[in-house]
Order: sequence, then C-alpha cells, then structure tokens
Amino acid sequence: VRALWLEDRGLAFREDFSLPEPAPGEAVVRVLLAGVCNTDLEMVKGYYPFTGVPGHEFVGRVEHSPTAPEWTGRRVVGEINAVCGACEACRAGRRSHCERRTVLGIRQRHGAFAERLLLPVGNLHEGPDGVSDEAACFVEPLAAALQVQEQIAFQPKDRVVVVGAGKLGRLVALTLKLALRDVLVVGRDTSRLAPLAALGLRTASSGDLGALPEGRADVVVECTGNPEGLALAARLVRPRGTIVLKSTYHGEATVDVSRLVVNEVTLVGSRCGPFPRAIGVLAARQIDVHPLLERRFPLAEGPRALAEAARPGALKIQLDCT
Amino acid sequence: VRALWLEDRGLAFREDFSLPEPAPGEAVVRVLLAGVCNTDLEMVKGYYPFTGVPGHEFVGRVEHSPTAPEWTGRRVVGEINAVCGACEACRAGRRSHCERRTVLGIRQRHGAFAERLLLPVGNLHEGPDGVSDEAACFVEPLAAALQVQEQIAFQPKDRVVVVGAGKLGRLVALTLKLALRDVLVVGRDTSRLAPLAALGLRTASSGDLGALPEGRADVVVECTGNPEGLALAARLVRPRGTIVLKSTYHGEATVDVSRLVVNEVTLVGSRCGPFPRAIGVLAARQIDVHPLLERRFPLAEGPRALAEAARPGALKIQLDCT
Repeated sequence: VRALWLEDRGLAFREDFSLPEPAPGEAVVRVLLAGVCNTDLEMVKGYYPFTGVPGHEFVGRVEHSPTAPEWTGRRVVGEINAVCGACEACRAGRRSHCERRTVLGIRQRHGAFAERLLLPVGNLHEGPDGVSDEAACFVEPLAAALQVQEQIAFQPKDRVVVVGAGKLGRLVALTLKLALRDVLVVGRDTSRLAPLAALGLRTASSGDLGALPEGRADVVVECTGNPEGLALAARLVRPRGTIVLKSTYHGEATVDVSRLVVNEVTLVGSRCGPFPRAIGVLAARQIDVHPLLERRFPLAEGPRALAEAARPGALKIQLDCT
Repeated sequence: VRALWLEDRGLAFREDFSLPEPAPGEAVVRVLLAGVCNTDLEMVKGYYPFTGVPGHEFVGRVEHSPTAPEWTGRRVVGEINAVCGACEACRAGRRSHCERRTVLGIRQRHGAFAERLLLPVGNLHEGPDGVSDEAACFVEPLAAALQVQEQIAFQPKDRVVVVGAGKLGRLVALTLKLALRDVLVVGRDTSRLAPLAALGLRTASSGDLGALPEGRADVVVECTGNPEGLALAARLVRPRGTIVLKSTYHGEATVDVSRLVVNEVTLVGSRCGPFPRAIGVLAARQIDVHPLLERRFPLAEGPRALAEAARPGALKIQLDCT
C-alpha cells in the first residue's frame, strides 16, 4: 500500500509498503486523514530511533476486523498504545505505560501515514458523531491535552499559564478554558498571538516580562517543544505551584534544581489522555478545532507536508491518506 | 560577640560581631551547638549571595525575650524562616514561602554560627526533652527529612530509593524507614555504605546497575547534592513514579525532559519541614542520630570545621558556640 517511510532520519513516499497480516485481535483500518504532530517532526530529527511508517493521529474506517466483525465499516479513531495487559504496569492500571507496548507510528508498530494501519480492536473508538473528519482527526491530540486535567486537581480560581502558542499550546489552553476562568497563553512571536484572542484566549508575549505573572502562576503548562520553555515556566510558577511538562523534544534541558527545591515546585510529565472525554468534547462542540487547522496535503506529498509542519508558527497539517 | 562571618565567598572567625537589637517579637538565643549543613558549604561556594553570619541548624537557650518573658531560660530549637504573616503566600498557608521572609543564616538574617542569634519567639520550639544537645541540634535537618512524608502520600508497599548516602540521604532514609518496608540507599562510594547497614538500611552501589531497580522505584529521593543524582533518579523511577528533589547546590542540572514526559514522572522539590514532628521523633527515640555525628569543633575553628565538612563522605560536623 502507499505510505510514508522513515529510515535513518530520511522520510520518503513509497507505493510498495506491505502491511503485515493482522495479529489476533487486530483490525485493519483504512486511514482517511492523519495529522502531523511535533513528535513526528522530532522523530525525523532523530528523537527516537524508529524505522517504519510514522504517524499516530488519524481518523479511519474499519475495513476488516476478523475477531470483532461488528466493527467493520465504522468510522474510528484509535488509542496509540497497544498493550500486553499482563506486565506489572498493566496490572497496576497504568496501561499506557505497558512495558511491552508497541506505539502506533512511534515504537515497533507502523503508523497512520499510510493507506491502511493495524490496531487492536480494543484501541478503537467509534465517532465522534456529527463531526467532520478533519475534527475527528484531532481526538488523539485533544485527549493528550485533556490529560493535564486528569493529572492536576485544578481549583476554579487557579491562575494558569500555558507557555507556547503553537498547536499543542492552543489545544491545551482551549481544554483548560472549559474548566478554568484564568488561562493565559504566552508565546514568543506576538504576531502569532492575535488569532488566539479570536479563540477567547488571553495572551502575552514572553518578551514582555511585565505582563507575565512572575512567581505567581499556580500551574504552568509547558507546551513550547524546546528547552527554553522549561526555564520560563520555572520563572512563572509560584512557590508550591506545579509545572506540567507536555512537550517532547530531542535533547536535554538544563534546570536550576535548587530553585525547584527552595520553592518546592512540582513538575509533572504528561502524555496520552482519555479518548472518551476527547470524543465527548468534540461531539458536544465544546471546542471547535477547525481554527487550528492549517492545510491538507495528499499522502504522496508527505515529505513536503512535514517540512511545512516544521515551519515556525505552523498549525495542524493533515495528510489525506485515501 | 564571637561569630563566623561570610563575605565574598570568604569565611572568617570574628570576635567583634555586633548582634543587632532584637526587633519586636524577637528573642535573643545563646547558641549551644550549631550544625554544618551542605547549604552552608554551597553558600561559601557562592550558591546564594549572602554577607553575614551563616548557620541555620542549632540548639540554644533563650537569654532574653522581651515580648514573651516566659521563654527566658528555655532550651530551644528554631524554625529558620521568619515570615511576615501578611503576604499572599502567608495568607494562603504557605508561610515557609513568605515573599518577605528572612531566613536564619541564609537570607537577610544573621545565623547560628555565633554566640548569639535572634529569631521571632514564634519560630522557637522547646525541647526535645531528654535528648542530648548533639541530638537536639538535628531537629532542623530531621524536620527537612520528614517533609518528604508531608508531601508524598506513600503506600506501605512502595519501593523507595534514596540516592545519596551522605548526611542528608541517611537522615531521609531513616525517616522513611519509620513508615515504609522497602527503602534502598544508593551511594557512589561502597566503602561508605557499610555503616548504613548498621543503621538498618539496605544499600547498593550506584556503579552496580544490576542491583538497582531500574525503572521500578515508586519513589526516588534525590539527596546527592550534585547534578548527577537527578540523572540516576530518572533512571530508577518507574513510569508515573515520583522523584523528590531534596538537595540544593550551586549550578544547574541537565534533564531529559522527554523521558519525564513519556514516563509521566512527577518531580517534587522539598525544603523545610515540620519541627513538632521532628521533636517528637527524637524525644520518643524513634531515630538515633548520634551515629550521624562526626566531630565537634570550637566556634573559633569554624573555617577549618567547614573545610572538614566539605570532605567527601563527611558526616555531621557541629560547632560548639558557647
């Protein structure tokens, strides 16, 4: 089948990718649309050694489901961690941390930048109903954004700052606005902040320190995708406040540990999130993700699409995989 | 009065230090013994710009207490943060994070390496009864060790690793053993681990990776006082586990943020702790701190005492300030 192929940091379009046979419990999904995530871009840069088909955000239609034929024909989105159910992490209820997991388009499992993909039926979710394919394709990143609220017990009056005004930062900010009064998005490039006001978000430039609640934020969510974001987050968070680490990138960040100790700051890493809640938010139209969409490319133009997605300020790029 | 004086990273003994007049609510305390903490050593290295008398661990006797004369003559230990009671942090119950605080021997308040010190009477605690001066002088670091249990909701079956087998690591491990079955202390220097077994602690060398629960520890407490400790802690903690940051040092650490994100690890900075609980632990003889004591120097030999305390493997050095 047609697919994008990542090998040795090179990304190429191929017509001859052979999808493996579905393992017991797996379904074959025809991919309709797939979204480009920063993790894909970091993988091309070498963030994680992976050879195969990348891509983990998708909406598709079940083509073949040998063990659960009732799923055939349904429009689905899919959780990306395929787990063993038997290891210590799985048994302790931390299934997304399964020690033997494969991860769609990231770890030992071919991904969504292809005409077809395989996932266990248990990973699939139908829907969301009444929502465009473009919007449905946001379920995975929206779930990841909602994970912040699964991990942090916010108080309605909390002062919350999202550092990073890109795709991830906007999505996180929109989900936080569902529950909180005071959400401020901080970005480097002021020209990029204007559209956020149209989304109902309060913004400030990271260069305008006077406008930032230095040492006053109860929670700061780091969404920049670069090591400088953590340093700014550490400046903004109040003593005994929380920094949520949301972005993954290749390389290390330096951190003033003593400052974290003296201020008794908590840092929390945050990754995949609750699909049912994300589907519910989209189906109920609590968040409109269309303004976050930039452009759609055919699958064959995938390498160009990823280059476009890597441009500073790029919003969501999707691949038409049909 | 006689005191040690820190200025421009130089530490000297002085006979002519003039203690300021006590402010309203403050008491004059004659210092009996003062303990040398790694923070003192880091301050001499320039961790924090401070000119004055360092030292914040002490036991003393109240000499003069104008506003609360009933305290005169009592043997006391003292909380080190002198707070305003009125700022946002104080009003929110985070008094040790008061925005206008002075800190004994650390920030805008002369410390305990002197014949006399000043503290608000509200910072003083009597006791602990029936305990030597040497042991009473451990109340402050013991409280800081107990703070870990104030911040983390441990489960009795948790696998807990303390990284760092020095003064701080041992004290933290002994406090954790009060509540937990499985506490492992990891140190670099195997020759230094032997005495820990005599304290009832299980140990492993950081060089012996096979003996370490890599990716398996529920909680790791970082007590090394150097940036490498965090990297080891990140290797040992399990997905969704917690790293407690306990040591302060001059300079920054590098951290693989993506690993923290992917594993959804929580980091928690931890500083000063509950004095009443520390006093209770010592008075009830739940922990014997005497094995943690190395040597006592007269105040006049303070510079030599701090040099001795900076020696790798040094245990607690105390200064006789009488």
